[in-house]
Amino acid sequence: MMMVRLNMKLALAALCAVALLLMLYWAHCTDDRHKPSAAAPAAERFVAIECSINGEYSVACRRDADQLYLPFSFIKKYFEVYGKLTTVNGVERFEWSHSYSKVYHPKKTYDPRGTFTTFENYNVEVRDRVKCISGVEGVPVSTQWDPKGFFYPTQIAQFGLAHYSKNITEPEPRVKILEDGDKISQNWIISKDAVMSREFDPELKMKVLSFATTDHASSQVWLKLDIAQDFVLTMDLLLKPNSSMTVVLQNKDKKETVYLHYVFNNQLISALDDHIFYGVGEESAWRRVTRDLIVDMQKGWQLLDRPKRKSPRNKFKISSIILRGSGSLGSAQLATSAHTAHFYAAARWLVRSQRPNGGWPVPARRRVAPHVPDLTPGWHSAMSQGHGISVLARAHYRSGDAAFLRAARRALRVLRLPSGAGGVRAVFMDKHVWYEEYPTTPPLFVLNGFIYTLLGLYDLHAIAGDRDAKHMFDDGMASLKALLPLFDTGSGSFYDLRHFTLGVSPNIARWDYHATHVNQLYLLAGLDPDPILLSTAKRWENYMSGKRAAHN
Amino acid sequence: MMMVRLNMKLALAALCAVALLLMLYWAHCTDDRHKPSAAAPAAERFVAIECSINGEYSVACRRDADQLYLPFSFIKKYFEVYGKLTTVNGVERFEWSHSYSKVYHPKKTYDPRGTFTTFENYNVEVRDRVKCISGVEGVPVSTQWDPKGFFYPTQIAQFGLAHYSKNITEPEPRVKILEDGDKISQNWIISKDAVMSREFDPELKMKVLSFATTDHASSQVWLKLDIAQDFVLTMDLLLKPNSSMTVVLQNKDKKETVYLHYVFNNQLISALDDHIFYGVGEESAWRRVTRDLIVDMQKGWQLLDRPKRKSPRNKFKISSIILRGSGSLGSAQLATSAHTAHFYAAARWLVRSQRPNGGWPVPARRRVAPHVPDLTPGWHSAMSQGHGISVLARAHYRSGDAAFLRAARRALRVLRLPSGAGGVRAVFMDKHVWYEEYPTTPPLFVLNGFIYTLLGLYDLHAIAGDRDAKHMFDDGMASLKALLPLFDTGSGSFYDLRHFTLGVSPNIARWDYHATHVNQLYLLAGLDPDPILLSTAKRWENYMSGKRAAHN
Repeated sequence: MMMVRLNMKLALAALCAVALLLMLYWAHCTDDRHKPSAAAPAAERFVAIECSINGEYSVACRRDADQLYLPFSFIKKYFEVYGKLTTVNGVERFEWSHSYSKVYHPKKTYDPRGTFTTFENYNVEVRDRVKCISGVEGVPVSTQWDPKGFFYPTQIAQFGLAHYSKNITEPEPRVKILEDGDKISQNWIISKDAVMSREFDPELKMKVLSFATTDHASSQVWLKLDIAQDFVLTMDLLLKPNSSMTVVLQNKDKKETVYLHYVFNNQLISALDDHIFYGVGEESAWRRVTRDLIVDMQKGWQLLDRPKRKSPRNKFKISSIILRGSGSLGSAQLATSAHTAHFYAAARWLVRSQRPNGGWPVPARRRVAPHVPDLTPGWHSAMSQGHGISVLARAHYRSGDAAFLRAARRALRVLRLPSGAGGVRAVFMDKHVWYEEYPTTPPLFVLNGFIYTLLGLYDLHAIAGDRDAKHMFDDGMASLKALLPLFDTGSGSFYDLRHFTLGVSPNIARWDYHATHVNQLYLLAGLDPDPILLSTAKRWENYMSGKRAAHN
Repeated sequence: MMMVRLNMKLALAALCAVALLLMLYWAHCTDDRHKPSAAAPAAERFVAIECSINGEYSVACRRDADQLYLPFSFIKKYFEVYGKLTTVNGVERFEWSHSYSKVYHPKKTYDPRGTFTTFENYNVEVRDRVKCISGVEGVPVSTQWDPKGFFYPTQIAQFGLAHYSKNITEPEPRVKILEDGDKISQNWIISKDAVMSREFDPELKMKVLSFATTDHASSQVWLKLDIAQDFVLTMDLLLKPNSSMTVVLQNKDKKETVYLHYVFNNQLISALDDHIFYGVGEESAWRRVTRDLIVDMQKGWQLLDRPKRKSPRNKFKISSIILRGSGSLGSAQLATSAHTAHFYAAARWLVRSQRPNGGWPVPARRRVAPHVPDLTPGWHSAMSQGHGISVLARAHYRSGDAAFLRAARRALRVLRLPSGAGGVRAVFMDKHVWYEEYPTTPPLFVLNGFIYTLLGLYDLHAIAGDRDAKHMFDDGMASLKALLPLFDTGSGSFYDLRHFTLGVSPNIARWDYHATHVNQLYLLAGLDPDPILLSTAKRWENYMSGKRAAHN
């Protein structure tokens, strides 16, 4: 009996052990396939399958019982579409985009006194092809077709128009007065062998701060600061030879200091380690210096080939301003922006630089297309002319200064000259005038530059009632409406008509240019009721989400 | 001691049980993930993930650690590409095709005496829009724009050119003589009240078989056959009113019999159950009847809306020919083909039907595009004229008969008349002549029809030395070379230029038309050394495997 009882206990114990292990096993195996995690549904059985692409190469695909699946890495490359993984409410998702770039549906009719199209969204200075903002001229320098850098009137005008537009759309800047020549600031520190004084300046008609330091490296007049928000410096400055004004920036997190030196020379920009130098010219005269210090710092890094950094405006603070050599300082302030100053810098550069024939020649050599003669330095661009007119018309409107208006009118002349005669005017099949962004022979018929030119003509007529500009605008619009369909690919748009004029492979507009076309057409549709403008804008907008035109 | 020993045994037994269960568990879990199967590599773990398409709708995708996968069903619809599963050497594979339709690289220069482009590959009769081959005229009847059916000169000419081309490329047909009027065949069965005799016919200048039956359904003169390979019947037949010649076909597998009745009336085609009727006219005169019996059967089924069947040529045999009423039979034979007969049927129809102004008017109303006036019955088509010329030039070449040449020359006149004046001639921007396949106002500039017209002009000049044709060809080639780029979409081609002339959404050529463009350009490149023809052909061919033009 006792043996029986022992055997039964043994059996019972073994059974319990078995049951326990079976339960553990079941819990493990089921748990493994249903690992709880925020997002995951059941994993399913997929097998690999080779996919032959047009009989040319293979791609590793997957299939289940119902479907074949292709890797996005292949689709992305084959069709040039875009996609990214995102997490929404803890759930992972993939977002497919047929294109990139934004389309703006104008809320009101275009007004030349207002923003220039959607340029409040443009940031010209940060483009890689902008070498820096010239310390002498206050306008951008381009390296687009010449690494040494040159003044590209189109770029300068876009810079001006972007700042004009931001001046309208952005809030008033926050301003901190650093120095008023008189009482502010009391915080300058004068090193032992340096001198500083305040006197009335007859030219500025106000008191100014004058300084003189010795050759010693430590001889300086400097202002200690701790400003972390507003990085646009405006200063009335007079420098004598061998003098400089330096702004010291410090990285709040790291132990990093950057020195922006504004020096008495004509060197555009140079940089070494943490020192970045901008020449402000060799004239001992008062100049109003307006500098976006963060841009100046980033362009120094760009020159040194350092990687771009995100949000330096959040990471740096201005720790001091140092004066060396001798000179004077009228007023100085830091602000969140100084759009009006930048705008007028562009407008005045345009007036200053305009040739007697009204043109702003481009000093860089430009190879536009194979088998087409280069545009040699001195070529004109309809887009430069048109954008220039848009800046000057607005400058005239804002200031009332007739010099701006005269320059704008003078700029029309180049638009009337044929491309072969130093101008920019082409004609499509003896019938439709076109203003050439790149006045090649044979012509190219670039679309976006032509439309920008038309907007310049519109601006001049709307603001100043210029009748020549109106006629040229009307002729140009007739051309545009007739030829617009030739830019339609059925799934996008052409950048130009080189396939027609040169017999080469078509030049499709990449998506940011295509979006520009759409935006331009929506704007023009508000000015001209011809249905071709709006219907084309809508169809071209649909192309951006993959809705191609129908086939037969 | 005994208790200790018992406990140890218990413990040992429990441990063994645990070990055993653990081994089973491990074997199960690892085995589950690596189930062996014939073709399958390891199934991997994939999870479902939602993919948002342009923010508009979602598609169920899959992902693993490295890749996102999209279902082909989505890609196929979004991009209109093609794909199918295949098995190669027991391994399953997926074959992706960017397009469909074949491109032919010509092995030799186009010779108008030879095949017409690649029409040896065309099968006009089997197209759904061909209602049937007319029993009276021997040429196809179209239902493309009129369900009643009409003679479409373009279709008739293509029928002729396809048979001309097949006559060149296919082997000599195998021929079985059924009846020679004299000695063959001895196998006619004459029912009781019917009569049959053989007499010399002065018109045919040979002995012919004459027959007469009564009204009784069973009264017939018939020939028992068992022929399974050659289905093109050629017969010299004379019918009197209320008479018919019937071919009986039987399905080898099923118990199915089809009766093709060729009857003395003018009804194009009718069908009821297994009986299909073709009118051969109401003239009691000798006619040479050439019928592809399989095509005649299939068109009867098409009329009855029966589903198409694969390979009826393999499934049917000819079991008898039945003569009813009264008439005569000269010769009769069955052959694999009778291309020359079909070709001349087309050529003679063209001569017969040509109007005094040289045109072959299209009797159907045609709506070509929205907001464009319909082409009303009687319109001409450059493609009809051009294809007609191609047929007639070859007919003249083969036969020496001047009537064909006169008709071909006369056909040029319509090409010179403007579209608005009953002709087909348009001009692009006052500069480039175009021969319109659909002569609308405003013009359409259809590409493939224009090129076919040019080939007709080329054929006439090459075969007959026609100088007008040569000039018109040269002018057309100048137009083509100038305007070809306007048909380039950067990833395909346009069917026409309606987006330019009508301001509507572009009409992209579907792949079979695009392939036609490519084939036409390769042919023309062999006739004209201008590089635009070959470079365009190559680029457009590359589009068919997804190699788009570059963007800027």
